Amino acid sequence: MSFTLQAESGGARAGVLDTPRGPVQTPCFMPVATQASVKALDADDLARLNPRAILANSYHLYLRPGTETVKAAGGLHAFMGGYDGFIITDSGGFQVLSLSKLRAVDDEGVTFRSHLDGSKHRLTPESVIAVQAELGSDGWTTLDECPPYPCAEADAARALERTRRWLDRSVPAVAAARAAGAKSLFFPLYQGGLHPRLRRPSAEHHNDCPADGISIGGFMVGEDKPTTWAMLGETTALLRADRPRYLMGVGTPSDIWDAAACGVDMMDCVYPTRVARSGHIMTASGKFNVTNARFRRDFTPLDPECSCFVCARYTKAYLGHLLRASELAAYRLLSYHNLHFMAGVAAQARAAVLAGRFASARADFLARLSS
Amino acid sequence: MSFTLQAESGGARAGVLDTPRGPVQTPCFMPVATQASVKALDADDLARLNPRAILANSYHLYLRPGTETVKAAGGLHAFMGGYDGFIITDSGGFQVLSLSKLRAVDDEGVTFRSHLDGSKHRLTPESVIAVQAELGSDGWTTLDECPPYPCAEADAARALERTRRWLDRSVPAVAAARAAGAKSLFFPLYQGGLHPRLRRPSAEHHNDCPADGISIGGFMVGEDKPTTWAMLGETTALLRADRPRYLMGVGTPSDIWDAAACGVDMMDCVYPTRVARSGHIMTASGKFNVTNARFRRDFTPLDPECSCFVCARYTKAYLGHLLRASELAAYRLLSYHNLHFMAGVAAQARAAVLAGRFASARADFLARLSS
Repeated sequence: MSFTLQAESGGARAGVLDTPRGPVQTPCFMPVATQASVKALDADDLARLNPRAILANSYHLYLRPGTETVKAAGGLHAFMGGYDGFIITDSGGFQVLSLSKLRAVDDEGVTFRSHLDGSKHRLTPESVIAVQAELGSDGWTTLDECPPYPCAEADAARALERTRRWLDRSVPAVAAARAAGAKSLFFPLYQGGLHPRLRRPSAEHHNDCPADGISIGGFMVGEDKPTTWAMLGETTALLRADRPRYLMGVGTPSDIWDAAACGVDMMDCVYPTRVARSGHIMTASGKFNVTNARFRRDFTPLDPECSCFVCARYTKAYLGHLLRASELAAYRLLSYHNLHFMAGVAAQARAAVLAGRFASARADFLARLSS
Repeated sequence: MSFTLQAESGGARAGVLDTPRGPVQTPCFMPVATQASVKALDADDLARLNPRAILANSYHLYLRPGTETVKAAGGLHAFMGGYDGFIITDSGGFQVLSLSKLRAVDDEGVTFRSHLDGSKHRLTPESVIAVQAELGSDGWTTLDECPPYPCAEADAARALERTRRWLDRSVPAVAAARAAGAKSLFFPLYQGGLHPRLRRPSAEHHNDCPADGISIGGFMVGEDKPTTWAMLGETTALLRADRPRYLMGVGTPSDIWDAAACGVDMMDCVYPTRVARSGHIMTASGKFNVTNARFRRDFTPLDPECSCFVCARYTKAYLGHLLRASELAAYRLLSYHNLHFMAGVAAQARAAVLAGRFASARADFLARLSS
């Protein structure tokens, strides 16, 4: 097994995932490099931030610059300028449904038109693994059919059955890629968590499938947060404990603690960089907007507790000025701070589990965040 | 005198300007930080690029974030995060005429409405010096009336007479600021170079005025390049040799050599960063656009001769991808390369003067650039 569970506390887990790019300590928050770039940051920034795992997106990279181009560059790590950590790739199933036009899902796969140029494409469970193998990512997910929310149980069951058959077809595709030399970890997609009667059979099917981890999709699709955590907790209770659980597309600083409390080990989200670009700054005592008039002559750092290079060098007044003036440097600097903060939150949650005081640390964190 | 002329060759000069922020070797190209930010770069980038002189803009900073804010931050250098080189500020005369609405020029000064919020403002020769003193820049220019192009000689003469009177009023304002502790160098604006009959009296007036250098405005306003260089050469011939000549708003790689050949010592331009943002890459063998389809699988650096961090780490294929995908990192990386290239061009021109082979080095550079 590539995952070592080190400790549990308050429902949360601390562990280490051994990857072809070195160990990843969990819980972890993974920055998102959808198009082979963590938005506004470059590879030097990434080396300084030093996340040991990030997410990239198969669908986007398949369409642009194209799988062949990334492969010819020597794979995603080299293409990006030499990132040395673990890259897991989203299968693209979600993006096909949310971004592309004229999509048609059949039992064999998905046909769609590119949101970029209207060109026609087809993805199958097998081709999605092949794409990820060519991209050279270190963690592979599977093609899934992500049902809309809300969704009638019968429709959800149909989508789930298809996702399940696609998973079964992905397994030999992964085996073939590994036989050809790939060392990537297999993180098949789990769906069905929001439907109590579908949840268990879906979990059992996943537990029986050969895999290194589980990518949990289908949450945060429109349901309210109490529903998310209730359903997520019931889901993880059904999943085998010896595999890392990656909750896709989550989340905010409080989400890190709430998801970890449900036994989640890995997360990713564009949230920290997206809100940064409109000036929202994350700190342990909550979020504020640096363009707020009250910071016009505030010559203190964004976050006095922060050790990032942005907080070491710049003031709220200057960063707010840059953003007001639409100066591009602002997007990078604010994004870096927020990602640095999120890495710290995940590290805090991990330390709390290892110290056996997760529940109280979570309560303290959430109390201060909303203070 | 703060300027030491070290050598002359082929009409060009090599020198050193002693400034409150250390020596600036000339000819030099100054990156532009209009709004206290060299577009897309941060202070760390600037420290790595290490230009010993940059340009900022009084008009923009006066309006946003406001002179008082920059002063409260400890001046422009501190506000920007600790840039340690020479900052010269444009007076804003050009921007008042080109950007603002409802401007009214009278003998006393300029009244205008902000291009940002329509608020009404008035600048006088004295207040422009005061603004620059409060901003804490190291080089000060003067309020001028930049006539449109083309312009009847009689109109130009009227504008010139006003600019001249404003210069005379600036001198005691500078003296007062210095008496109050300012150590900044005085680079009053020269106008009139495009009008043969106005050129000499304007130059003589400047030569007699107490100053550390001369800021040459009114070129590159629409006239063709042969006219620029002919008129510029005739202008610099009239200017005293012991003061550095700063040609404002110039230019391209070839402009550096052509202006230096006219005896210009300092230049600035937004050109390298502006064209970078649309993918244009500068090299010694000419300019190309990195988004061109032929670079889609070109895994070589932008410029194999370049020693900048961008060329050390990234490929044309990746940088072209980032720009095509509208990834913000592209703007920074391409801007950095172009500014690094421009610094190298100025350094080459300087080395050629010092070696006494400027004319042949210029011919070689221009031949290769258009090859």
